[in-house]
Amino acid sequence: MGQPESVQLPAGFRFAGVTAGIKPSGKPDLALVVTERPTVAAAVLTTNLIHAASIDWCRSILPSSNFRGVVINSGNANACTGEAGAANNRRMAEWAAESIGALPQQIAVLSTGIIGRPLPMDALANGIPQAAQALACEPRDFLAAARAITTTDNAPKHGWKQFQVAGQSYTIAVMAKGAGMIGPNMATMLCLVVTDFPLNQTNAVSTLKIAADQSFNAISVEGHMSTNDAMVLMTSAGIEASTDPGSLEVFQEALNQVTLDCAKLIPIDGEGATHLVRIQVRGAANRNEADLVARSIANSALVKTAIYGNDPNWGRIVSAAGYAGVSFQPEETSLQVNGFELFRAGTPLEFDETQVSHSMKNAVQVDIELTIGSGTHSATHWTSDLTVDYVRFNSDYST
Amino acid sequence: MGQPESVQLPAGFRFAGVTAGIKPSGKPDLALVVTERPTVAAAVLTTNLIHAASIDWCRSILPSSNFRGVVINSGNANACTGEAGAANNRRMAEWAAESIGALPQQIAVLSTGIIGRPLPMDALANGIPQAAQALACEPRDFLAAARAITTTDNAPKHGWKQFQVAGQSYTIAVMAKGAGMIGPNMATMLCLVVTDFPLNQTNAVSTLKIAADQSFNAISVEGHMSTNDAMVLMTSAGIEASTDPGSLEVFQEALNQVTLDCAKLIPIDGEGATHLVRIQVRGAANRNEADLVARSIANSALVKTAIYGNDPNWGRIVSAAGYAGVSFQPEETSLQVNGFELFRAGTPLEFDETQVSHSMKNAVQVDIELTIGSGTHSATHWTSDLTVDYVRFNSDYST
Repeated sequence: MGQPESVQLPAGFRFAGVTAGIKPSGKPDLALVVTERPTVAAAVLTTNLIHAASIDWCRSILPSSNFRGVVINSGNANACTGEAGAANNRRMAEWAAESIGALPQQIAVLSTGIIGRPLPMDALANGIPQAAQALACEPRDFLAAARAITTTDNAPKHGWKQFQVAGQSYTIAVMAKGAGMIGPNMATMLCLVVTDFPLNQTNAVSTLKIAADQSFNAISVEGHMSTNDAMVLMTSAGIEASTDPGSLEVFQEALNQVTLDCAKLIPIDGEGATHLVRIQVRGAANRNEADLVARSIANSALVKTAIYGNDPNWGRIVSAAGYAGVSFQPEETSLQVNGFELFRAGTPLEFDETQVSHSMKNAVQVDIELTIGSGTHSATHWTSDLTVDYVRFNSDYST
Repeated sequence: MGQPESVQLPAGFRFAGVTAGIKPSGKPDLALVVTERPTVAAAVLTTNLIHAASIDWCRSILPSSNFRGVVINSGNANACTGEAGAANNRRMAEWAAESIGALPQQIAVLSTGIIGRPLPMDALANGIPQAAQALACEPRDFLAAARAITTTDNAPKHGWKQFQVAGQSYTIAVMAKGAGMIGPNMATMLCLVVTDFPLNQTNAVSTLKIAADQSFNAISVEGHMSTNDAMVLMTSAGIEASTDPGSLEVFQEALNQVTLDCAKLIPIDGEGATHLVRIQVRGAANRNEADLVARSIANSALVKTAIYGNDPNWGRIVSAAGYAGVSFQPEETSLQVNGFELFRAGTPLEFDETQVSHSMKNAVQVDIELTIGSGTHSATHWTSDLTVDYVRFNSDYST
């Protein structure tokens, strides 16, 4: 993944990030990302029944082959705000559309922040035209937008990747936000993917779904799925685009990599986190069972506190696997932590606890590899450890 | 529930709690509870695939109409110990049986403590006959047994209840242990129920299952189901017993109450806990859906940290309900915390945050009441808050 300083952008997009005045802190809180001409876009949205007005809006307009852009506000989730919230969301789309000469249904709206409070519409009425004025296509404009969508993040999250298809070079750039309330199936997480690779609507939907499942749907901080999760993909390559399966595979691979790299920034930045934890489950009878076991381990508070304490506590890991609701044989179960084998064929092994603990303490990433049988399926999940600072932070934060 | 000082016991049992030397601390770690004559017993056992030798043993001998007693050790779970662990478990049953003149298959074995280490058989070889010598039927003997089964508990947990059927008086007494690794479907939790009420084997099984579901299966600390959970019911009333449905109902009601009262002591004593949280979900289409929503809230780290901070954070509660996997209408959803209505028909209400926070701060118990529709089914779940001390404790504890 490219470094922040060197972010490279696909052609055909303009970006802006401004301060509309939604956040009491006075930090940037409004982003606008638009294409020059109508284009293809798709979304993966939270499945939480309790969700924001923006989710209903995005669900009604996406996927689309007549798309122009996204307006994103941070500082207010516009969730649990009833009909007034839906009307305010629509007005955001209208104002953004008006400011760039488009129709409201060509504009996606994403919101993140505090739940249950009305959007400050005066701030948005001024902020959206201001953002439209600021639209430009330089890396600093992309970075301003990436910064404006953050809330409790310690830093903006973004990445990019260049790839070649049939001698031609394409680019994918990603911005994301999220640090807490990150659960399976995307939590308070927003992600925008922009590319100049040509995609029709069907391919945009299918490639985004695959990328989401192995990236933002495979990370968690505390397993709480939020009201506002959304991942939007848009291409600037125009609606006439069509692609052959071979080149689509190259795109999919690049998309998977850049979205996973960006997704991993979220648990690294998890509230109070000191470790990024990679959980790989192998030998499952099918992908779903591997996934269930990986999630059960990733969501175990006892596993996560042990990792915070650099404690190679294999008992907590295998017992979390044991209650995942998946049938496997304890006698076929083996566990490695940071490459040290702690448990083989259902029995704990002798190992040097100090050495393994040391390996955990000295690295940001802790690797858990659990084999649950002789099946051929596997799954990987990423999470953060559960720390004293996580509890401090989340017991001292209102709504 | 009776007070510890005034514990009243059913006739026909003898109890002992001694120090066998399993715990490095030198605290009591071995309990024995026996009946005078062969009797009826039933068990509810962990469904974790990764479980202790004691669970396999109990599953092989219970339910039973030819039962004599339970030997319980704390300090070592005898879990993930392979065939040697199974052999050691069987020896515990043999030694206990020998010491009271019974057969091994008349003796249940329960273990709790550290996972993956061999049982110290020398300590048990001496401790079990020592416990048999100490067997007696006074409240202090019951309390000694209750103390000997604890691990990280701050205090032994027990209760009793007297009830009348057809003019005759019966007693149920309960002892339990558990403070961490408490998840739905019973975590590192042991519970022994003794009664002089006559039960046949079928009724023992059915009444225990009902009582477990509304007590120990409705509590959690962090949602981690352990390897050793077990709940055993035994009656001293003899195998010839049979009961009519009416009196069985009276017994069921008393059993439900005494087991729930005892179960609630676990989240109150949850590692580092400062609040007991009652989550009532109403208006569900069926009992299972009510239960899923209550558990989703009870297992949300964000809800639990908010309660630690006395923060009436309704957004975290309703969003945890929203991802429970249950279909309900947000517009039919209402929420009360400590009797204050915070959310009605899908919309947050104006409320005095300081007043609600104050009500949380000033009470051990926090009441969450969520209505999710107009159905007639409900469920109640009990949990503890997630505190800085929980993380400190669990990041500093090996296996």
